[in-house]
Amino acid sequence: MKVSVIGGTRGLGYWIARFLKDEGFSVIITGRDREAGLAAAERIGADYCPDNTRAASASDVVIVSVPIDVTPNVLREVAPNVREGCLLMDVTSVKEEPARIMAELIPDGAYFIPAHPMFGPRVTSLEGQVVVLTPTEDNPWLEPLKEFLEERKARVIVTDPEKHDLMMAVVQVLTHFAYISIAATLESAGVDIRESRKFASPIYNLMIDTIARIVAQNPYLAYSIQTHNRHARRMRDLFLETAGELRDLLDSGAMDEFVRRMSLAAKNIDDIESSLGRSDKAIEALNHELSLLKDSVGGEVGLKHIYSGKVHVGILESVTPDYAILRSGKRTLKFKISNIRVLSGDELLRWKADNLDSAVYDISAVFPDGVRPEVIEELLGRLDGVVEARVTDRYRGPQIPDGFISLTVRIRVFERESYERVKKVIEGMGASIR
Amino acid sequence: MKVSVIGGTRGLGYWIARFLKDEGFSVIITGRDREAGLAAAERIGADYCPDNTRAASASDVVIVSVPIDVTPNVLREVAPNVREGCLLMDVTSVKEEPARIMAELIPDGAYFIPAHPMFGPRVTSLEGQVVVLTPTEDNPWLEPLKEFLEERKARVIVTDPEKHDLMMAVVQVLTHFAYISIAATLESAGVDIRESRKFASPIYNLMIDTIARIVAQNPYLAYSIQTHNRHARRMRDLFLETAGELRDLLDSGAMDEFVRRMSLAAKNIDDIESSLGRSDKAIEALNHELSLLKDSVGGEVGLKHIYSGKVHVGILESVTPDYAILRSGKRTLKFKISNIRVLSGDELLRWKADNLDSAVYDISAVFPDGVRPEVIEELLGRLDGVVEARVTDRYRGPQIPDGFISLTVRIRVFERESYERVKKVIEGMGASIR
Repeated sequence: MKVSVIGGTRGLGYWIARFLKDEGFSVIITGRDREAGLAAAERIGADYCPDNTRAASASDVVIVSVPIDVTPNVLREVAPNVREGCLLMDVTSVKEEPARIMAELIPDGAYFIPAHPMFGPRVTSLEGQVVVLTPTEDNPWLEPLKEFLEERKARVIVTDPEKHDLMMAVVQVLTHFAYISIAATLESAGVDIRESRKFASPIYNLMIDTIARIVAQNPYLAYSIQTHNRHARRMRDLFLETAGELRDLLDSGAMDEFVRRMSLAAKNIDDIESSLGRSDKAIEALNHELSLLKDSVGGEVGLKHIYSGKVHVGILESVTPDYAILRSGKRTLKFKISNIRVLSGDELLRWKADNLDSAVYDISAVFPDGVRPEVIEELLGRLDGVVEARVTDRYRGPQIPDGFISLTVRIRVFERESYERVKKVIEGMGASIR
Repeated sequence: MKVSVIGGTRGLGYWIARFLKDEGFSVIITGRDREAGLAAAERIGADYCPDNTRAASASDVVIVSVPIDVTPNVLREVAPNVREGCLLMDVTSVKEEPARIMAELIPDGAYFIPAHPMFGPRVTSLEGQVVVLTPTEDNPWLEPLKEFLEERKARVIVTDPEKHDLMMAVVQVLTHFAYISIAATLESAGVDIRESRKFASPIYNLMIDTIARIVAQNPYLAYSIQTHNRHARRMRDLFLETAGELRDLLDSGAMDEFVRRMSLAAKNIDDIESSLGRSDKAIEALNHELSLLKDSVGGEVGLKHIYSGKVHVGILESVTPDYAILRSGKRTLKFKISNIRVLSGDELLRWKADNLDSAVYDISAVFPDGVRPEVIEELLGRLDGVVEARVTDRYRGPQIPDGFISLTVRIRVFERESYERVKKVIEGMGASIR
């Protein structure tokens, strides 16, 4: 099957193109910048085509992934060129207008599904990601598309374009607008955020962190989200009106009415108890990492940088609320705790097995006859620092007394110390090393 | 030392009274409801006194913990009765007005420290909690008080009342006002929150959860916070003004100016990268619990209810995004995942050791002479389901061949199966069970 991704040279379009290529499709990408397009195509093994209409008419599936403000024009250009039986999709965050244009211009016998993948190009797989599909007509592509996505563990929601845009007016427009307003107020008031955190409860820190997350987005994307949704203006107006009413209640000392409004708002939240539970857990998770580290000072830890994915292993020298100091060989490294995750014991061992040089030792020892190799393998394999323990030979012969057997155990360890330790344990079981 | 807690019969006052009693102080509590006061006093082993002034004049330290709107009057009643050399404190969330009243009415030679413990009566210890102290005069009580709190791992901030109230206008007033406004808007717009979560990214869910947390507070307390801080009105006005400006920029299509404002707001956040890191981790933690559970279906798990603290142990039958189904004996239990934490393997074992009946078995086995009891204890103690393994006897005698020794190992396990397994492992080492 041939898929063309219009605007597939960067951002989400590039992500989609690479994903589909990895899934085994034949992929064409288009994009205005010829150099960048050729380079992107080469990187992922796709074809580059400078002409949107040509790409569209050569494909079974055409996916338009261009900025929201040019999407209508690109759809007008591409839709009439979709072949009979083939499928046109877009992936912008509003759905009413694209759906209308596609419905108007798609040729008879061709199909379209407006879509909104609710994730950005930073994700590494479809697992757990939400994809909203808003078909407006009977469509033989819908079921296969849904199955394809669900097999890859995406959560697929099928709804209509208007419902989608209404929901987005809440999920994206209202919350983002309010959060950007808080951040802008903090800036106007000249608030020193770092100073304010000292006074603050964990929930305040979590609030600031989520506000930071929204305000750190690409501001042009934020602007698009606020301006392309037909319901956005109404939602912002309602927010300002509501906040204004609450302010007036507070300013005029209308306690009972304020309390009534707040209680109504609380009652409207679907499940306060679960929300408290989840936010407690989120807060606890932030403290958890720090207490894990505090318990590990002086010991060996593995720290994984949450963005680069790079793992650093060493002796944890000290911990402050913000930083961890690691000694790795002769170097001393300083890590911001917010940017790292502490590896579990198993993860650390697995990382070492994949990344460090390990040494193999053979140990031969004389055990009583009834010894069971699989038990020896299990007991030794559980010891710290032992990657693997395997019995490679059993021997009975003139040098071995009656009622005994010699086993050769092959172990893989990172440090000679662990080898010495294994020998001590074997002797501790009562066996004699040869 | 004698401490009286004015308003110590419930809420934070009760928490403080109980805490100080546990710390070994002699505690008097006061409160208008005599019945409730006597009952509370009896529960914690304190004395009840119906008269604030009498309690104050009988104490070395007087702590006023009453609702914010009656705090000024109670301070006026109590302050003149504090004895020479003694200390008066209040614990409300604004500090300018209480500080002024105390300064005016405290007798010569007595002292006062306005304070704001930034936690509620739900916390279980002072560890990690912020306590703000705002002394306005030289005060011999300050250092001992600070030390007392810091020894109990509280984070103490010493500042002046105005700085405190300015910070709270941000940390509590602005954020709470904005969040309550979002929640009230969702209610006005008739948004079905549960439905909206289906469309949503993890960050939206986290936003709703933190909003729920704020809006689920006691609305009278929320009203107090909004109305007793001198800077609150200015902060709400600034918020509405700023949000109004941003709305106008969006409505009029002033993209560049919107982008400029948003970028300034982002730049004002102290450390965006850390904020992203922490919120990523918070989100990951919420997913982590679910994936832990998914990996444990069919196996034994321990689920701890995050509010009641009760632990349920059983076989995990199935998991949905919201619920975990546990079979415990003959009962099938359904848990909301947001309300539980999955115990780690160690925690589960520790819980079993404390709560389940365990059985003790003695196993005697003949090992080669070189056997080391501490190695046997370690190897057996690491086996699943074994709480403890200890060598209680060594024996050489007529029944034991030369070159061998009999060890008796006492093990403690929850299930007979584990005992059978330990015997197999001992035999697997080559020893003969007697």
